[in-house]
Amino acid sequence: MSERGIRFRRTILFQGEPGAYSEEAALALFPGSETVGHTTFTRVFDELCESERAVAVLPVENSLAGIVQEVNDLLWERRGLRVGTEHVHPIRHCLLAAAEGPVHRAISHPQALAQCRRHLEAKGIEPVPFHDTAGAARHLSENSEPGLAAIASAAAAERYGLRVLAAGIQDDPSNRTRFLVVSQGIPERPRTAQDGWKASLAFLAAHRPGSLVAALTALSSRGVNLMRLDSRPLRDRPFEYLFYLDFVIDDPDRAEAALVELEEQAAEVRLFGSYPTEE
Amino acid sequence: MSERGIRFRRTILFQGEPGAYSEEAALALFPGSETVGHTTFTRVFDELCESERAVAVLPVENSLAGIVQEVNDLLWERRGLRVGTEHVHPIRHCLLAAAEGPVHRAISHPQALAQCRRHLEAKGIEPVPFHDTAGAARHLSENSEPGLAAIASAAAAERYGLRVLAAGIQDDPSNRTRFLVVSQGIPERPRTAQDGWKASLAFLAAHRPGSLVAALTALSSRGVNLMRLDSRPLRDRPFEYLFYLDFVIDDPDRAEAALVELEEQAAEVRLFGSYPTEE
Repeated sequence: MSERGIRFRRTILFQGEPGAYSEEAALALFPGSETVGHTTFTRVFDELCESERAVAVLPVENSLAGIVQEVNDLLWERRGLRVGTEHVHPIRHCLLAAAEGPVHRAISHPQALAQCRRHLEAKGIEPVPFHDTAGAARHLSENSEPGLAAIASAAAAERYGLRVLAAGIQDDPSNRTRFLVVSQGIPERPRTAQDGWKASLAFLAAHRPGSLVAALTALSSRGVNLMRLDSRPLRDRPFEYLFYLDFVIDDPDRAEAALVELEEQAAEVRLFGSYPTEE
Repeated sequence: MSERGIRFRRTILFQGEPGAYSEEAALALFPGSETVGHTTFTRVFDELCESERAVAVLPVENSLAGIVQEVNDLLWERRGLRVGTEHVHPIRHCLLAAAEGPVHRAISHPQALAQCRRHLEAKGIEPVPFHDTAGAARHLSENSEPGLAAIASAAAAERYGLRVLAAGIQDDPSNRTRFLVVSQGIPERPRTAQDGWKASLAFLAAHRPGSLVAALTALSSRGVNLMRLDSRPLRDRPFEYLFYLDFVIDDPDRAEAALVELEEQAAEVRLFGSYPTEE
């Protein structure tokens, strides 16, 4: 590998065990990269803040379960980070086995087991809870026993050398998670004229009538389209709210002007970044 | 019990196993009531829609995990229901045992185990995953083995005759869930002048610049204070959004006028109810 190649090689951080859906998403974005899993989101953010070379692939929203509050809160709290890309990843649960033969029991996280309930019932497979999906796959690879399977990602199958008996066994085929790619840097302002870009930010609005509307008017008066808006009460400041917001960048000049006015209207604004929309 | 008593006795529905935190919240609201648990939120809503006498106690938001998207979505989808009360319930994880002696392993849902990580590490207790917290308590009561404990609610201890070895063992003491009481009926409009009432509703805004702001201006121009605002993309209608919204009722006349104007501005509005604020 050339010096240039080494220089730009980066470590991709994710939360979870090797083979977690977050790692699968990370490898879909950065094929062949070195990935490092941490047990908590806080530790991933700690690593990000310490290393200029680190990149994290973090879930912010799931189509079934909703917002991943902790990641959104950490994006607000930590400084000097930027969102550079989004990736919408389908969550395709797979039935994995270490050996041949019929399956009688499947280990996985209770949420994954519940999402595959119809498949398991139809096949007469008993669901057995485990800490997480990828951990179940690893356990199976280390402790093979007849009739035992795991429910986890295809990435977990590859990582632990398991056979995929069935893929996409979740009851609801629309299950997908939106990931953001976060690294150190200055968030890009909405200056890209390409189709399908959006900006993500959060702002703090005081608890007084009209303050939120004044902030949103800054966007709407310039034709800015909201894609997402979520409020979050501040734990230590009663009656004050954070608003997380994504908007589409149709016209970069108007989007920039809207952002400048929002910065004037709101108590505090933090732009996370501008990036191409995947969905 | 008098005929009148029988007539007004109601079944309280919740999602989960007997002894779940939802049942604990239901019994905090309706002490001594008959409670019935269902495996899924959809089944609880099915029961609610079928029975005039049923009442459900449903989680809509957790301080750590965020919005319970499925309950919010079902509130929007099902007709003829009303929210009558809210209840903010502290989630106090308890270490439960069936017998005397030191504890070496604790079974519970992975999320509860993770929330008690520091306590378990300090006591040298190995976390062992289970389908859910209350199910772990039941399992323990039916299969007592030396050194085994469960992490679940105090209600689960009472229901399954277990001893509470330690209460409130979660790392973050602020963990709490907001529940709503839902039953058949016509949602009350914001006409109460008492202190600390709020209204919950959802509305559908078209994906055109200004539509959301026009809707929110209907509220802010009358001094209505938002407590919560969450957007939710509609799965089958790209670029259309549902907004879930709570607002404080300071002045019932202005709140009613604001609601009427919102009904004119938005594509569709569904008021879930007006009720006293608990937080």
